[in-house]
Amino acid sequence: MARIVMKFGGTSVADIDKIRNVAQHVKREVDAGHQVAVVVSAMSGKTNELVSWARQAAPIHDAREYDTIVSSGEQVTAGLLAIVLQSIGIDARSWLGWQIQVTTDSAHGAARIENIDGEQIVERFIIGQVAVIAGFQGIGPGNRIATLGRGGSDTSAVAIAAAVKADRCDIYTDVDGVYTTDPRIEPKASRLIKVSFEEMLEMASLGAKVLQVRSVEMAMVNNVRLFVRSSFEDPLAINQNRFTGTLICSEEEILEKQVVTGIAYTMDEAQISLRRVPDVPGVSAAIFGPMADNHINVDMIVQSISEDGSRTDMTFTLPDGDVEKAMAVLDDARNEIGYEIIQSEKGLVKVSVIGIGMRSHAGVASTAFTALAAKGINIRAITTSEIKFSVLIDADYSELAVRTLHQKYGLDSK
Amino acid sequence: MARIVMKFGGTSVADIDKIRNVAQHVKREVDAGHQVAVVVSAMSGKTNELVSWARQAAPIHDAREYDTIVSSGEQVTAGLLAIVLQSIGIDARSWLGWQIQVTTDSAHGAARIENIDGEQIVERFIIGQVAVIAGFQGIGPGNRIATLGRGGSDTSAVAIAAAVKADRCDIYTDVDGVYTTDPRIEPKASRLIKVSFEEMLEMASLGAKVLQVRSVEMAMVNNVRLFVRSSFEDPLAINQNRFTGTLICSEEEILEKQVVTGIAYTMDEAQISLRRVPDVPGVSAAIFGPMADNHINVDMIVQSISEDGSRTDMTFTLPDGDVEKAMAVLDDARNEIGYEIIQSEKGLVKVSVIGIGMRSHAGVASTAFTALAAKGINIRAITTSEIKFSVLIDADYSELAVRTLHQKYGLDSK
Repeated sequence: MARIVMKFGGTSVADIDKIRNVAQHVKREVDAGHQVAVVVSAMSGKTNELVSWARQAAPIHDAREYDTIVSSGEQVTAGLLAIVLQSIGIDARSWLGWQIQVTTDSAHGAARIENIDGEQIVERFIIGQVAVIAGFQGIGPGNRIATLGRGGSDTSAVAIAAAVKADRCDIYTDVDGVYTTDPRIEPKASRLIKVSFEEMLEMASLGAKVLQVRSVEMAMVNNVRLFVRSSFEDPLAINQNRFTGTLICSEEEILEKQVVTGIAYTMDEAQISLRRVPDVPGVSAAIFGPMADNHINVDMIVQSISEDGSRTDMTFTLPDGDVEKAMAVLDDARNEIGYEIIQSEKGLVKVSVIGIGMRSHAGVASTAFTALAAKGINIRAITTSEIKFSVLIDADYSELAVRTLHQKYGLDSK
Repeated sequence: MARIVMKFGGTSVADIDKIRNVAQHVKREVDAGHQVAVVVSAMSGKTNELVSWARQAAPIHDAREYDTIVSSGEQVTAGLLAIVLQSIGIDARSWLGWQIQVTTDSAHGAARIENIDGEQIVERFIIGQVAVIAGFQGIGPGNRIATLGRGGSDTSAVAIAAAVKADRCDIYTDVDGVYTTDPRIEPKASRLIKVSFEEMLEMASLGAKVLQVRSVEMAMVNNVRLFVRSSFEDPLAINQNRFTGTLICSEEEILEKQVVTGIAYTMDEAQISLRRVPDVPGVSAAIFGPMADNHINVDMIVQSISEDGSRTDMTFTLPDGDVEKAMAVLDDARNEIGYEIIQSEKGLVKVSVIGIGMRSHAGVASTAFTALAAKGINIRAITTSEIKFSVLIDADYSELAVRTLHQKYGLDSK
């Protein structure tokens, strides 16, 4: 007997037939003797509809009212799944954020969970009842509904799993696991059986869309084992004892550590260069302070020192869409920073190589540089961290770079 | 300065443009210096969609889950109206049943309000904030959402008005008031300026669709003045000091009492007759007990005593749709009741004449009998009460009967 939290996203609950399919997945786990809580998203498309109404009502609006409106999507799905489960003989009831209580901070629209009272849910486990929980929502200060931001149902599921001390949190989605890279770019991409929290965190922040970054962070902090699997597999054909998805767990659970686990990429990157900036203390703060104040997310920063040491070039990357705003901010700060020339370029892509094995293996990155050079791909910037390195290249070469690195690090499926 | 509860139904909030129109009605009252609470229904069509999903999920389902699902419609409208009000400079916030708290009994799907805590709403009135309240919902035992049954937003509005001691409860709808009869049958029907609670109660239970029976009952018990008006009139053209709808109030407020206020009718009536029933004590109980046990709503009952006093004929009316069930029930009870012949007839209509003036005027009904006879309309049964009388006739004559009585009692508009 295990205690399991199962999470189903919008496409898995898009209509009543799909909700019936979800119920079969739940039944399989209940029949196997497990204690089950299910976290659901809104029916696919519903949240967009609700968001669009709120925007039509007023482009800028009270986030507490926005949350009242959009949280209704998950409320409907939770009720519907509870009804379907009951109809196939499974004791179940729906739970909303304010009923459990999932308390959050006051950042309506993108609230953070502060505490979850798992007591009522655990009491119901003991009498054999399945908890069907509306994801994405909690209760903020002043008894107002708060939502966790788009995709927040993953975070809800992990937080619930931590609160009820679940053995596993199964994230059902429209893919059957985490892949070594995007299969749309590299058909030879293969499904990972296990991946560590830290690798997954890098992959998620680098554009692998399977899981939300925050949910992986929360799983890592609380050591909640995450299992990504497909909700479209035949629920009854899934063998209880054989994993058909990807398990995301602590490094200790992974016996055979790969040097490289996966290749990720983020599109729509841009680069801004400030030429001949005085190389004095405080110049970085003069550049990046105003960027932060304007909520511009700066990523790879490269500083090249000039020969005489008095002037320097500063280059950094940022999302494509922020370039105009950033250029305006830097124009305002020109006198303070003291650069001579400013240049920007769009249409770049960041390709990243991830693997916990890098910690103990030297020279992993140089293999990539050689391989990319051999294909004539120019590297514009490099960043490295303990378990990954990233290169910035022209978007035209993205597919070629991903495929080259995928092959080079032995990730191609046999 | 007055304290006003304004209620808008589904067609009045059907889309964002209509919600903007509602906001203008609210603004007019706020600008006039009034304290305002607004009760809203779900956007037209939304409740039907949600109900249909619940039915698809399972034809017979947990009413608590049904309530969780369908209550989301009003939740969305409340948030949207709060946003629109804020966008035109009016301080406003949405309130859900569990936030206020509107506590109900456990009859999920058709719950009755037990108590409303008006304190938070009144506190907000004092700081000039408009309360936008999701109608149709409350919180039942065990912290579960409960709904008041279809059309329950009228009841919510009246209950809120009673709880905050409002001076008036304005029910905005797609008609501009209560008419002397159905204008689709009699184009000469005219709008009533004032009508008493009791008259309105008779009209509502006899098929006038403007207001729910329960909301009128609740208004009468709590002496909440109801004002029925159209939400589609130009909000800014409505003169504050001139009523353009119908005021439903206590008799004392109505100085010029009409003998007859209106003509109502209910279609799809049927009649069952039991011939030669032994005229002994307990025979009525033997007939109507089983009917009540089977939830068959019996209306007009006529008993005619036979010449020798040992046998009697019992005739009663019931809704068309219940005839087959009633016949089966009476067949089972045949030996116990001891009737000789049973007959049923569908396709009847009940026409009712309503007016508080009947209390002090004799002979009101006989005018009707004469007028109907002059048109060759046969009366199958008659019932009378203090402020109304009803006649049962063939459905073929419904329009003729309504028009004849409307003219006879001087209700035709000039």
